[in-house]
Amino acid sequence: MNIKGQHYRTIWVKENEPEVVQTIDQRLLPFKFEILDLRTPEDYEWAISDMIVRGAPLIGVTAAYGMYAATLSKQSRHDILKVAESLKKTRPTAVDLFNSIERMTHAIKTSSDPVKQSQIALSLANQMAEESIEGCRKIGEYGLEVVKEISKRKNGEPVNILTHCNAGWLACIDYGTATAPVYLAHEEGIPVHVWVDETRPRNQGSRLTAFELGEHGVPHTVIADNTGGHLMQHGMVDMVMVGTDRTTRTGDVANKIGTYLKALAAHDNNIPFYVALPSSTFDWSIRNGIEEIPIETRSPKEVKYMEGWNGTEIDDVLLMPYSSKTANYGFDVTPGRLITGLITEKGICKADEKSILELFPEQRT
Amino acid sequence: MNIKGQHYRTIWVKENEPEVVQTIDQRLLPFKFEILDLRTPEDYEWAISDMIVRGAPLIGVTAAYGMYAATLSKQSRHDILKVAESLKKTRPTAVDLFNSIERMTHAIKTSSDPVKQSQIALSLANQMAEESIEGCRKIGEYGLEVVKEISKRKNGEPVNILTHCNAGWLACIDYGTATAPVYLAHEEGIPVHVWVDETRPRNQGSRLTAFELGEHGVPHTVIADNTGGHLMQHGMVDMVMVGTDRTTRTGDVANKIGTYLKALAAHDNNIPFYVALPSSTFDWSIRNGIEEIPIETRSPKEVKYMEGWNGTEIDDVLLMPYSSKTANYGFDVTPGRLITGLITEKGICKADEKSILELFPEQRT
Repeated sequence: MNIKGQHYRTIWVKENEPEVVQTIDQRLLPFKFEILDLRTPEDYEWAISDMIVRGAPLIGVTAAYGMYAATLSKQSRHDILKVAESLKKTRPTAVDLFNSIERMTHAIKTSSDPVKQSQIALSLANQMAEESIEGCRKIGEYGLEVVKEISKRKNGEPVNILTHCNAGWLACIDYGTATAPVYLAHEEGIPVHVWVDETRPRNQGSRLTAFELGEHGVPHTVIADNTGGHLMQHGMVDMVMVGTDRTTRTGDVANKIGTYLKALAAHDNNIPFYVALPSSTFDWSIRNGIEEIPIETRSPKEVKYMEGWNGTEIDDVLLMPYSSKTANYGFDVTPGRLITGLITEKGICKADEKSILELFPEQRT
Repeated sequence: MNIKGQHYRTIWVKENEPEVVQTIDQRLLPFKFEILDLRTPEDYEWAISDMIVRGAPLIGVTAAYGMYAATLSKQSRHDILKVAESLKKTRPTAVDLFNSIERMTHAIKTSSDPVKQSQIALSLANQMAEESIEGCRKIGEYGLEVVKEISKRKNGEPVNILTHCNAGWLACIDYGTATAPVYLAHEEGIPVHVWVDETRPRNQGSRLTAFELGEHGVPHTVIADNTGGHLMQHGMVDMVMVGTDRTTRTGDVANKIGTYLKALAAHDNNIPFYVALPSSTFDWSIRNGIEEIPIETRSPKEVKYMEGWNGTEIDDVLLMPYSSKTANYGFDVTPGRLITGLITEKGICKADEKSILELFPEQRT
């Protein structure tokens, strides 16, 4: 999508320098816009674990390019597999990461020639980026139908969509998942307005979603994470649309901490709650999200301090007595029973095993 | 309760200077501890509207002392009534404010002698402070029974209590409402641990509740407001206890924005959800909280910026693109159906009209 009127993707192979991959340093947004070069496997591990890049689809594609970097710098298959293991340890929740590394490893193994391996790896990583974009566009098209349906009842008033965290194009390669229907609606001239949860503790909503919607010209309002329930009680939200980092075969979704609370409020107020996802986020091996999806715990500092722009630079401020303890869980699980529909690149289904398997019959066991 | 080992109330008449009332500047906590003198009615209006003092019971008592100040500085009954009107406009949601001003106005009217009026006003304001403390202590005693009951099942492990915002002694005169059972349990040696919601946008949880619990030695952990649902899904919360700024006769409560979301999560996970309140927060005239309780909207800046300690001073940082809009609603309404019990100074009752009127039969119409 656009930044200052110019089209960008979140990750791309550098022009005339195919061993270098470039990405936007998302830690600095919205205050600074900087592009970083990734070269070594360690660069990629750092980019994922330090959240230069974040969002399940982008993490997956970044790891794929990281495997490509491994073929360039490592001699033996053993070394390449070690990179795969290290990359898998960078973030624990996003299943895209594991799927993507598995797929790359499998492809690289088909040749023992280092040059061939690199060609295979680059080509597959590029393909995965294109697949992600195409998947997001499809999600956008299916989700657009839902937005259009709601818009019919609104007499020209904007459709108010609440979203949590950033499941935008910055979390993917382009379009985004939860934002894809928003961008397509906006481009078709259907009036939309997005309520953006700030998404403490890392504020991906106020920093990233607000940034990308603003740069693309989509009307939006940032709110504290506490606010959604009140808005829903007063008819100010027409639908909720979020992403997911991991989805069970029964339709439970692990998404950014706080998503479950919004799903409860939407359910309590009869407001449609949709989860947009590329099917790569399905973990077909599990049925009980709350019991089986591992939830990342992150540094207590993210809760204790808040990062922002102090007028001259990005700085953080202490928010509480220095001696107070904090806890920082990255995700929560929203049970399928609270979800109106899953919007995938294959179509929309209910968040239950039967409906999901009708869209993905190849996953029947 | 204690600050650095010394006992404090939140507001008191200055020793040997009875025309001056002193209070803690809560805007600076937990980073600085400063005591302010209040003298003129304008000082009191400013103290309430600028949130030097906050919390329904403390607002009520502060307004009472404000009426006392009016009797000292104003000559005519007309002028005193003008102060009453101005004080009523300082905050729109807390019913204590209106009740307290009405009670003071009524008492002052019983005399036409200015000196006598001041004596009556000071005496009644002091009495209201004592009544608040006694009410909080009673709430603590009733709530303590609930905590003890849960503690029996915990085999010596701490009772985990989640709270939102600050319904602590800093919001009252002493003890607090939602914290009163916690302090009494702690003093009786019952192990308790408090999950403190940071409570964006003004962070009364991380700034005030964490401060007062820490100073009094109560174990606690600060969490992002998004976290409670996850903790409840995983059995890490034994009960929720919050305050209220206004309570309908049917048991709906208006409390800090985000309370409703925690009530939904508690309900979904069969976790007891209690609201602690002095009966002064009842608004006996209304039945439907969502439709009838006016919700304060506050400055968009509170969402756009975050205030904290930058290492040398209290400073704020910008959290989002400067051009993004924000919305800032101060409260939401939790319907009585989601509340396990109301803990009042008269005892505990269910959050429905019949049960409430059994405790408060004088309010039957």
